[in-house]
Amino acid sequence: MTKRIYLDHAATTAVAPEALEAMKPYFSEKFGNASSLHEFGQEAKTALENARNSVAKSIGARPAEIIFTSGGTESDNLAIKGVAFANKSRGNHIITSKIEHPAILEPCRWLEKNGFKVTYLGVDAEGFVNPADVEKAITKETILVSIMHANNEIGTIQNIEEIGRICRKRRIYFHTDAVQSFGKLSIDVRKMNIDLLSASSHKIYGPKGVGLLYVGQDVKIEQVQHGGGHEHGLRSGTENVAGIMGFTKAIELANKNMKSENERETKLRKKIINEILQIKGAHLTGNPEKRLPGNASFYFEGIEGESLLIRLSEKGIAVSTGSACSSHSLEPSHVLSAIGLKPEQAHGSLRITLGKDTTEQDMDYAAEQIKNIINSLRKISPFNKW
Amino acid sequence: MTKRIYLDHAATTAVAPEALEAMKPYFSEKFGNASSLHEFGQEAKTALENARNSVAKSIGARPAEIIFTSGGTESDNLAIKGVAFANKSRGNHIITSKIEHPAILEPCRWLEKNGFKVTYLGVDAEGFVNPADVEKAITKETILVSIMHANNEIGTIQNIEEIGRICRKRRIYFHTDAVQSFGKLSIDVRKMNIDLLSASSHKIYGPKGVGLLYVGQDVKIEQVQHGGGHEHGLRSGTENVAGIMGFTKAIELANKNMKSENERETKLRKKIINEILQIKGAHLTGNPEKRLPGNASFYFEGIEGESLLIRLSEKGIAVSTGSACSSHSLEPSHVLSAIGLKPEQAHGSLRITLGKDTTEQDMDYAAEQIKNIINSLRKISPFNKW
Repeated sequence: MTKRIYLDHAATTAVAPEALEAMKPYFSEKFGNASSLHEFGQEAKTALENARNSVAKSIGARPAEIIFTSGGTESDNLAIKGVAFANKSRGNHIITSKIEHPAILEPCRWLEKNGFKVTYLGVDAEGFVNPADVEKAITKETILVSIMHANNEIGTIQNIEEIGRICRKRRIYFHTDAVQSFGKLSIDVRKMNIDLLSASSHKIYGPKGVGLLYVGQDVKIEQVQHGGGHEHGLRSGTENVAGIMGFTKAIELANKNMKSENERETKLRKKIINEILQIKGAHLTGNPEKRLPGNASFYFEGIEGESLLIRLSEKGIAVSTGSACSSHSLEPSHVLSAIGLKPEQAHGSLRITLGKDTTEQDMDYAAEQIKNIINSLRKISPFNKW
Repeated sequence: MTKRIYLDHAATTAVAPEALEAMKPYFSEKFGNASSLHEFGQEAKTALENARNSVAKSIGARPAEIIFTSGGTESDNLAIKGVAFANKSRGNHIITSKIEHPAILEPCRWLEKNGFKVTYLGVDAEGFVNPADVEKAITKETILVSIMHANNEIGTIQNIEEIGRICRKRRIYFHTDAVQSFGKLSIDVRKMNIDLLSASSHKIYGPKGVGLLYVGQDVKIEQVQHGGGHEHGLRSGTENVAGIMGFTKAIELANKNMKSENERETKLRKKIINEILQIKGAHLTGNPEKRLPGNASFYFEGIEGESLLIRLSEKGIAVSTGSACSSHSLEPSHVLSAIGLKPEQAHGSLRITLGKDTTEQDMDYAAEQIKNIINSLRKISPFNKW
């Protein structure tokens, strides 16, 4: 049996044992529908509201400002479409960036077909949105700005607080997709001037199928998934209580260990970046410092990222090229294109994302295998110039 | 400690032990993102596609026609809005009924604000939609008919096959919300002329937060939750593999036991209906025969359903008045209004829904307690005429 080293934590993570324990009673014992008035229902309702309190507290929000959803994609859809439809009498313009996740870009493109206008801001070579560009793009029709907290491919952390400040000054709602940063970077929605924030459970050792949207109390928003009017009328559908309990526990764990884990992952990340950059034609993508603690992303000249990924998988090492969501696409990554990479460079990309169980030995083994595979891929390449 | 007798299976059910077992490996061991190309991802992908095959087979569909969602509400939203938007060049008219779940009615009302027209068909005193009324309501603008398979409050089973036949003849898409019937009544989407069908996991001993939409291969539909393009481009968002495995196991169990369990529940239902109808001023809602096996619904003259529910809950018996989704509403049930009940009659409603662990003793105990509580409520009522 080969080693199995998972270095794709930005794609998904294993549920933490503590999170699974927190879920268990809510599958078969405390299984009530939180909308039911009887004891079984009230038991579920109490658990749900305790979870909401705990989650709200962790980001400086009020419980009524937390909407549980089925995941980051739903949260992003609700934020973008819910604000757009609720505020169309005020204006029809949205500002976002070219490096957002498809869960932001696709709702924006759909809105463009339905009467809205969207500005997709460019980024610099390290993936930063310039806050001044946000300010310049604002028109009197602008109702929403959505800029992600940290990028899923290259790990770049945006100056959210400053972008939020600009939006607040102009009385425009500011949403941030924090799917990659939530539970990893400290977030205070009030200090950071955030009106709406999306997060996902399965990126931080909680179960898949759960997420949340923070919606500040003054935000005008309408529901997108219509029905029985659950979640303060903003998200219909029977609440996934077990999933929410697992997510809540995962958030508690993440916050408890955030500081030490960030330091640990940052150290390991620096180690593997140093190792990998010794390979000729290897380049770091994103900024060396202002990046997610566990993100190490590269491109290699003259290498097909997918071949590298497959060979690493054969060696038991799981990494990605670009993001999992677009892994079946033949197009070069929109993020890598936006930071100025040519298609052939973008096709040589590799993303290593660390997690709580990643060790120094994993880094050594992965770096060694990457070096070997790149050498051997280059040897068989007809364009080999190395 | 009081007895706990759960008779609200239409609201939700406990996860079956077998379903939970089926989920477990996918939380922490086989936790990969099904979109990832490496081994962890492919393991998840394989499980997902095996589940899709099994589920498709159970309703006579093809695997590519099954879209996993976060639940019945999302499935209904996708069916209604996805077909409406994809076919607006053909027409803007939708036909549904007055007794649909809010997950159908609310998307329809939202579409009415966005350029669509909706006909809400009435029903007879037992809750039946007359297929001839569907035919009469069709105009050359009609693109979709959505009629639920079985009603969540009164259990009435519609003549889906005939309604589907009419739609097929007129080349109009036919959707049915089968959240209450799926896994309880035999369903063959081809024989029953169904183009789209919604189902939910947590109503049939699977986990909450999972559902499916069957979409026939010829149906023109567009995605509603936009993003990475998962689920054949019809439902974006990382697949909840563990949840889907639990749902799939629950479907297998439901199908295996369907015949015997239906006979068993029907017998128990008849027993409690007979008992309850001995109470003066007690009336059955829905049809005595053409109803869900486990549904026994009533209204009692001169009784506040909510007082009855609370007193039953104190005795450890969980029932509902109307549906869980609208349990916090003060409005009389829209279903009971549609079958002709006056508000004061509708407010005296009680829904008992049986499940796989319901016993004859439970029926006896519940019937006895209901009789006692109704007697005592009437004694204290200033309007007592009993």
